[in-house]
Amino acid sequence: MKNIVILGATGSIGTNTLDIIQRFPDQFQILGLTAKSSDEKLESLIKAFRPKVVALQDEVAAMALAQRLSKTKVEVLSGENGILAVAQLSEADLVISAIVGAAGLLPTLSAIRAKKTVAVANKEPLVMAGEIIKKEAAFNGVSILPIDSEHSAIFQVLNGERHQDIQRIILTASGGPLLRLSNDEKTQISPEVALAHPNWKMGPKISIDSATLMNKGLEIIEAKWLFDLPAGKIDVVIHPESIVHSMVEFIDRSVVAQLGLPDMRTPISYVLHYPERIPLSLPSLDLAEVGTLTFEKPDTKAFPLLTTAYAALEGGGSLPAVLNAANEEAVKAFLDKRIHFGTITKVIQQTLEAHRPNAIKTLDDVLEADRWARIEGKRWIKKDTNS
Amino acid sequence: MKNIVILGATGSIGTNTLDIIQRFPDQFQILGLTAKSSDEKLESLIKAFRPKVVALQDEVAAMALAQRLSKTKVEVLSGENGILAVAQLSEADLVISAIVGAAGLLPTLSAIRAKKTVAVANKEPLVMAGEIIKKEAAFNGVSILPIDSEHSAIFQVLNGERHQDIQRIILTASGGPLLRLSNDEKTQISPEVALAHPNWKMGPKISIDSATLMNKGLEIIEAKWLFDLPAGKIDVVIHPESIVHSMVEFIDRSVVAQLGLPDMRTPISYVLHYPERIPLSLPSLDLAEVGTLTFEKPDTKAFPLLTTAYAALEGGGSLPAVLNAANEEAVKAFLDKRIHFGTITKVIQQTLEAHRPNAIKTLDDVLEADRWARIEGKRWIKKDTNS
Repeated sequence: MKNIVILGATGSIGTNTLDIIQRFPDQFQILGLTAKSSDEKLESLIKAFRPKVVALQDEVAAMALAQRLSKTKVEVLSGENGILAVAQLSEADLVISAIVGAAGLLPTLSAIRAKKTVAVANKEPLVMAGEIIKKEAAFNGVSILPIDSEHSAIFQVLNGERHQDIQRIILTASGGPLLRLSNDEKTQISPEVALAHPNWKMGPKISIDSATLMNKGLEIIEAKWLFDLPAGKIDVVIHPESIVHSMVEFIDRSVVAQLGLPDMRTPISYVLHYPERIPLSLPSLDLAEVGTLTFEKPDTKAFPLLTTAYAALEGGGSLPAVLNAANEEAVKAFLDKRIHFGTITKVIQQTLEAHRPNAIKTLDDVLEADRWARIEGKRWIKKDTNS
Repeated sequence: MKNIVILGATGSIGTNTLDIIQRFPDQFQILGLTAKSSDEKLESLIKAFRPKVVALQDEVAAMALAQRLSKTKVEVLSGENGILAVAQLSEADLVISAIVGAAGLLPTLSAIRAKKTVAVANKEPLVMAGEIIKKEAAFNGVSILPIDSEHSAIFQVLNGERHQDIQRIILTASGGPLLRLSNDEKTQISPEVALAHPNWKMGPKISIDSATLMNKGLEIIEAKWLFDLPAGKIDVVIHPESIVHSMVEFIDRSVVAQLGLPDMRTPISYVLHYPERIPLSLPSLDLAEVGTLTFEKPDTKAFPLLTTAYAALEGGGSLPAVLNAANEEAVKAFLDKRIHFGTITKVIQQTLEAHRPNAIKTLDDVLEADRWARIEGKRWIKKDTNS
């Protein structure tokens, strides 16, 4: 019996993870769950999965939930410290890190420091602080398992292979809902249109990142740390059908790819049972039915953020953290309808231009870069709103 | 330094193997080479690769070659026994089994009995005598490595995976040069047209097998023995671009595929260096350049031999050996322009119908089924020629 903790249990990854777990009651037990503020959604999960401890970031929501659960044995924690406590529960075997954005950084690091195997679904912590996370994981003898469909694909393919035999990895990108629009058409797009991903049902942040291709930009940085590869060995190809989840080319020109219908339950089940697989009664991929798979080079004029992300990856230091923070602020402003879609790119690029890159040696360096970039990003957002 | 023996050195696989070997003079040494009758071609290989021993099946050609090489240290053997002697050379580390057709059976078995790792490029021995070959390999503690691009793909994908996690394997088939022709159009096709494979340059036998889809039929039987899977777990999908070489679906619905440009040097280099990979300076697969990959269900009306092969696989016993022998005779007759293309199918199906299936317990059972089927097949060929 494996004891599972889910950080960010009420989101898309959390829900899909619980869907798998309820199929195998003899193999997995939910030990802890966390959420930001959805106390009612968390309460229904508590009834279904009977965790020992839960935490809500929002103190008010936590108090309300604690009151409603006062006659049960479930412990309700609150705030940042509550989340960190759940991330470190001593009986946990596997921590699923699925808190959206930079907010996932400290909980992920806490789990690693508590010597837990961590499955990461949120790419932002690795983008911001990849070097620190990798060092901590090595120091604590902890494995980091990817859940993101692209990184799971590469992780599955690399199973049984030697690192030195990798020629390059090729991340596939659907191109998102705006793939065929001109830059002019995109500028005026509403959040509702940008949120409508053609293949994947995901949360709002990652859906907008897919529409700008920043999601792929974050993924190349994530891949650098997960697979210990330089930028020159990380390629991106547009594949609108989202059937090939990613590929590895080896030094003998053999390319191995992982494919499947777009369903996060397959990569989630892989980390739950790694290195073995569990049988899932999900629809089977029928390529004859799919018929056609297409591939094209990314249009870096239409999607300049991919180039921006490569530059941040190559520049290193504080640049990826700044890229990530500026992006988070810009996406939030776009979802709130404070800026146009086209302004997301401008905010990120202007913030990066204004930044003087620093080396990242400690967690504080990361948090400082993140803090600075949010202030700077907000300044550009405000400027744009006023203009 | 690995000592390599190539059985069938002057054919397409032999030539490609030597192309790889000459790139790594520090890693591989050619110990022995065999050929059927091409003494001049073999002589040029001897000059380039300096093997210790060679053998020619054809006694007259062998004598001529021996005379020309009388002042060198190269030992020239002849006939069936000569080939078998080269297959068993005591210093050999790896035997490449690339003799076309049933003629490869005894040399392959001899190498296995001499406790050599055998890389099989010729599928016919496994089709005819899969059970015996597997038993001998297990008894002698010997690995059988596949070279066929489809089986190499599956072999590469299964590296690091558990057998029990396999849901099914999916062999891809280009559909050959006659994919879009009607049955009527196909009947009158000439050997020259049928030999013109759209993606692969191969020998005449396998090229005709590709045009009838019998090649895929032989491959499903080969796959049964190589990967220990029942017929129900072996699927075929038509993929005209020959970029995806084959796939494995796992029980969690994850599909892993091996891809590459159609070039046998990648699977050959894989067996030469297995389980490691060697760097090959070959063109890299650029999917954005390829653009589109298509997949469709096999049309079993247009290609009835695939269904015939599944029936032989499921029936087992002597049926696969009969299928193979009738096919070899029919293909030979077609290449000699003694029968029409459409008659290949008829000869095979009539031979199988006339056959009373036996269990296969010994090599003699296999050879008897093979002998019977050739006589029966020839009878149908003659009947057709006379009609």
